[in-house]
Formats: sequence, C-alpha cells, structure tokens
Amino acid sequence: MTTDHLPETTPRRGRPRDAARDRALMDATLTELQLHGYGGLTTAAVARRAGVSTATLYRRWRSKEHLVIGAAGVWAEDLGPDRDTGGLRSDLRTLLHDKATALDGPSGRLLRAILGEAAHNRALADVLTQEYVAPLQDRVATLLTRAVARGEIPPVEDPVVVGELVIGPMITHTFLIPHTPDSRPGAEVAERLLPYLLRALGARTE
Amino acid sequence: MTTDHLPETTPRRGRPRDAARDRALMDATLTELQLHGYGGLTTAAVARRAGVSTATLYRRWRSKEHLVIGAAGVWAEDLGPDRDTGGLRSDLRTLLHDKATALDGPSGRLLRAILGEAAHNRALADVLTQEYVAPLQDRVATLLTRAVARGEIPPVEDPVVVGELVIGPMITHTFLIPHTPDSRPGAEVAERLLPYLLRALGARTE
Repeated sequence: MTTDHLPETTPRRGRPRDAARDRALMDATLTELQLHGYGGLTTAAVARRAGVSTATLYRRWRSKEHLVIGAAGVWAEDLGPDRDTGGLRSDLRTLLHDKATALDGPSGRLLRAILGEAAHNRALADVLTQEYVAPLQDRVATLLTRAVARGEIPPVEDPVVVGELVIGPMITHTFLIPHTPDSRPGAEVAERLLPYLLRALGARTE
Repeated sequence: MTTDHLPETTPRRGRPRDAARDRALMDATLTELQLHGYGGLTTAAVARRAGVSTATLYRRWRSKEHLVIGAAGVWAEDLGPDRDTGGLRSDLRTLLHDKATALDGPSGRLLRAILGEAAHNRALADVLTQEYVAPLQDRVATLLTRAVARGEIPPVEDPVVVGELVIGPMITHTFLIPHTPDSRPGAEVAERLLPYLLRALGARTE
C-alpha cells in the first residue's frame, strides 16, 4: 500500500485493490446506516465491519459525513440508462420498475436513513438533489418528450410534478407502511400506479 | 404536584397544568428531533428545553422511544375532520392543503426526523401507520365514495394507491428538494398536483 496522501475532499478512482476496499466500506456504511440511522453510525463501527483500520477509513474519507456522501454515490448507478421501448406505457413501466428496484434495495435503505439528517445538513441535501432527484427528473422529461412527439399525450405542462407522481407514491408505500424483510413494496406498487399515471398524463389507457 | 405513579405505557390525559407541561415536552421533542435527528436526541436535552427536570420527564414518558411516540400523537390533530365541500375538485383541494399545512409544519419535520428510525423500530413504524397513514387513507376513501355517488368519477379500483398519489408527491417535494426556511413546499405543490389527480381519477377537469 502506498503512503501518499489522498486529496481530502475529492475521492479518486483507485486501483482494483482500492476499489474493493471502497466497496466494502460503502457496503458497511449502508449496513450501519440501516441498523442505527445517521445519528447512531460511527466510523469505528464501519471500519470494523469492512475489515479495515480506522486509519485506513480516514485516509479515504475524512469524516463521517464524507463517508455517507460517498455511499450516496451508489444512487448514480441505480437508475440505469434511459431506454426507448417504443411507447409511453412500456417506457413508464420500465422507469417505475427501475426505481422500484432501487428503492427496494440498498439505495432505498440509504435514502430512508439519511432523510432526517438531510433536513439540517446542507451537504447531504445537495447530494440528494444531484444524485437522486435530478437524474430521475431528467429521465421523466426525456420519456415525456418522446411520448408527446409520438402523439400519445398532449404537451406536459408540469414535468416536475410528473416526476414527483412517479417517485412519491413508491417512497410513501415503501417508507410509511411496515413490510416484511422479504417484501418488495416498490415493485408491488409500481404496477398499480401505471394506469393512474397514464390517465393523469392524458394517455388513452386501452 | 401529585406523587402517584402514572401507568408506565399508557399516558393519561392530565389536568390543565399537566397538559401545558406535556405540550412543552412535545414541542421540545420536535425541536430536538429537527435539530439532531432521532439518534442525536437525548431526554436530558428535551427536559432542559422544556424547562422541566429529567425526573419529571421520566414520570411522564418512561423512555426516549415513548417520548417520541407521544410526540407523534400530534399527527392525529393535524388532518382536520373530513368536510363535504360539494364536489370532488374542492374536496380534493381541501385535503391536499390540509396535508400540505401538516407537512410544512412540525408534523412534517417530525415525520422526516423519524423515518429512518422507523425502518428498524417496529413501535415507531406502527405509530406511523396508525396515526399518519390510516387517517389519510380513510379520508381519501370517504372523499372518493362521495365523488362516485355524485357521478363525478367511475368507481375507484385502488383507493390505497390514490392515497399514495395524494401524499407521496408532497412528501418527496418537501423532503428531497432543498428549501429555504420560509418556503412552504407542500402548499406550493398541492395546487400543481390537483389537475393530474383529477385526470388520474377519470374526472373531467373542465
């Protein structure tokens, strides 16, 4: 292992051995957040779970906050690329199931664990916007533009609200209602949302 | 002050002096949750902020968890009674603005502060369902039944999803996007949601 110092604020992409260590630290962070919430998370517990020393952790992430923000980077990988499936219904279904998969997995657990903290932590709030909200809004806008161009729906006056209609009900269904560890609430509600969203957009549903 | 012991798990409604003390404890709990999240909240800080001794706090609430669950009881007062305003559009607008007012106030801050904790605290999760989700779902169902009876919309196949479409977008708009301390994101998005919800329900929007 090299002993050179990493920049304090800009994580770099490391060699394969570093990438594996990063992944272990991220997984450990998610697990600790899920178990104890942001307030209960300690860098010592994360390092122990990841099998690295606290010194190693601090060489990579200089604070608890940077560690959690780094973990939030997993979001960017969640929402696979936009795919043109040829029609609004299948485009929307694909997006709903992509988001459901994310919400039912580590990314959803992370989101839930840091929502409270983000209320009074501007750095976390900004990560939420950049890594979570903006990619979703972009993908919704792209999908709607295609549907309008195909003549499937009239022009959409408020695509931001449509984005909230896509993600909001899945979040409340996942976060506000108790579920069993094996249930997949996001996926369950995605299919039920589809006809309502299509009607809301003015699409013919048959 | 009497020295008799209160039941450990069932808070009773007290005399006026006790009610004022309870209110101060609840307000202090909400403030501490907002400032520090569930993990950072201590009963000592809540007692100090409410101007009571820790012993007094523990006579009323036997643990941090019971204190927070008691604070969650403010939800029951949030969602005023159902009102028949004579039409689906105005019924729905009234409900949206009632929920927006709640989300933009202490109840929304409490919800945000405990969402992460509720993921691994079944008692809190159950309070969420009983005090927050169930009253909303009941009120949505009542409103839809009236609209169907008036012939404004066809029968609703999935009133639970309609409830999530009412509350979900307001929650994501409030929790996921940074706002200024003075902004009222719930109220702002309520009016924008209305035409989409009416179309989703199959109502004529003109």
